[in-house]
Amino acid sequence: VLERNLRAMQCYCDEHGLALRPHVKTHKTNEIVRMQVAFGAVGVTCQKLGELETLELACLDTLIAFNLVGSDKLRRLAAATTRTPVSVTVDDVRVARTISSTLTRSAGTVGVWVDCDTGLGRTGVGSSRDALALAQAVDGLPGLELRGLFTYPLPDRESWFEQAIDEWARAGFAGPAVSVGATPTAFETHTRGYATELRVGTYVFNDLECVGVGSARIEDCALTIRATCVSRPARGKAVIDAGSKTIGAETVDLGAGLVYGAVRNRPDVVVDAVYEEHGLLRTGSGDGLPELGETVDIVPVHCCYAVNLHDRLRVEEAGELLGAWKIAARGAVT
Amino acid sequence: VLERNLRAMQCYCDEHGLALRPHVKTHKTNEIVRMQVAFGAVGVTCQKLGELETLELACLDTLIAFNLVGSDKLRRLAAATTRTPVSVTVDDVRVARTISSTLTRSAGTVGVWVDCDTGLGRTGVGSSRDALALAQAVDGLPGLELRGLFTYPLPDRESWFEQAIDEWARAGFAGPAVSVGATPTAFETHTRGYATELRVGTYVFNDLECVGVGSARIEDCALTIRATCVSRPARGKAVIDAGSKTIGAETVDLGAGLVYGAVRNRPDVVVDAVYEEHGLLRTGSGDGLPELGETVDIVPVHCCYAVNLHDRLRVEEAGELLGAWKIAARGAVT
Repeated sequence: VLERNLRAMQCYCDEHGLALRPHVKTHKTNEIVRMQVAFGAVGVTCQKLGELETLELACLDTLIAFNLVGSDKLRRLAAATTRTPVSVTVDDVRVARTISSTLTRSAGTVGVWVDCDTGLGRTGVGSSRDALALAQAVDGLPGLELRGLFTYPLPDRESWFEQAIDEWARAGFAGPAVSVGATPTAFETHTRGYATELRVGTYVFNDLECVGVGSARIEDCALTIRATCVSRPARGKAVIDAGSKTIGAETVDLGAGLVYGAVRNRPDVVVDAVYEEHGLLRTGSGDGLPELGETVDIVPVHCCYAVNLHDRLRVEEAGELLGAWKIAARGAVT
Repeated sequence: VLERNLRAMQCYCDEHGLALRPHVKTHKTNEIVRMQVAFGAVGVTCQKLGELETLELACLDTLIAFNLVGSDKLRRLAAATTRTPVSVTVDDVRVARTISSTLTRSAGTVGVWVDCDTGLGRTGVGSSRDALALAQAVDGLPGLELRGLFTYPLPDRESWFEQAIDEWARAGFAGPAVSVGATPTAFETHTRGYATELRVGTYVFNDLECVGVGSARIEDCALTIRATCVSRPARGKAVIDAGSKTIGAETVDLGAGLVYGAVRNRPDVVVDAVYEEHGLLRTGSGDGLPELGETVDIVPVHCCYAVNLHDRLRVEEAGELLGAWKIAARGAVT
């Protein structure tokens, strides 16, 4: 399933001339980075410097999709640029300036993407005019190489980037790269003519959030958490040995109320509640609950979050154990 | 703050003749186990065999507050009993029987607590009659030593245990130990005359859930996550480099809507939203948000959950760094 997901996304990008820059935050695993590169990724995206420092990214073109602020991070960024081609996002000229002065001292260079808030309301400049002003400032700073425009997720507002690209062209930055993200809308990216690059993480595994928005079917979900039924205290009730510390505490509504997970191959059974180390299963039909001692495979709501709770992935093909992959960058918090 | 919390709980238990059996799931850290034992804990509680296997519990009387089911766990339980005095909870005679047969082969013994559902609806036998039947079965099984009655959290229904204790006395099990849990109601435990033992975890750190129910003040919260303001994209908005993978994804309502965390020493500032690696701060007064590059200390909603996302605790006293403690049993998922 993992291979099928990787191949489908790469084929889509190849077909539409999009560069694929997968996000390692989802899996944090060297083996999957290598598969993504083998399939044709142009580089990777990290959310934390710690991911770049921990994973074996070798000479991969690596985008840290974050405003890097503070002397510790700037020191580490400067060190990283000596080993790996690194770019970062920036939404404030002050951030660009401190990165530039750090790099001037170390003689490194870093690519810079202008982070644009196209509707999410998280980080990013708020207007195309501000995006251009920041691009012009970056262009004049030593050690920085302007890469293009960056946003997350795929914008609803078509006009944002069309206007920005016009303004950039008039200012001498013709045809900038435009990097967009998000698995749920990934296969619509080609309908935004300006997008040149796709950043996606979740697509490697998919999860119930993807099922909820219709971008994946449950059989496209590659990641499950194997749990054991440890209690059948009453009819219609089953308790498993996996809870929020094992499958996460996030919820999604698939049409029959909020759930914390689904059970693979038992379509009527969902995780109805979680405690730290207990999960409560419920069944719509009154049937299908596991008996005491039976194992179940739980599809999590949010795979990026679930992976980060674990140290290893158990790799199976058609039920046969192929090996264990270390989640090398798990817990990279800085 | 940590020391004050540890001392307050031990003093309370000493004053009321309650045995204190702290839950290691909250901190998963050897240094804190040693402090708890030095203050007077009679033993510890684990939620996972992996916690017992990873922490240095030496000869501590250790309760694994879980139905242990499946051959892998039973093998590991048998191994653990050769090193540590172990007890477990059981809510099903089939679980007790398989533990007994495993131990018969290894010649170990394990204490057994009868898990009672006194209202939570998670695991546990549903009636005092079922509790007695299970106790009698356990009493007749080789390798098992009946320890007493167990529940979580502190029961609302007074009569449950009064009736159970009467029935146990008539059946020849006079004056059983009764183990109850939960930090929020910890200081009410003495009002339940039957309780002999208190299991609490959260009290070591406290968190916003404790503040929400009034069992702790914000200044009693020992655990914070240090984050940096990485973006001030608009007036009244600040973004930090800590999100659900760093502080957790749980919420609590402290009276002004759901929040994902509070900021220490900035009473008006709360974490309003989290993404995986971003947190959005909001302020009630319009003031107090950190400037770009400033650090803030976030009090998490659920400390047990937040700790499990990290590898180390940074230990400070009055702002001075004392050291780093390894969260040795982090990610003990089985």
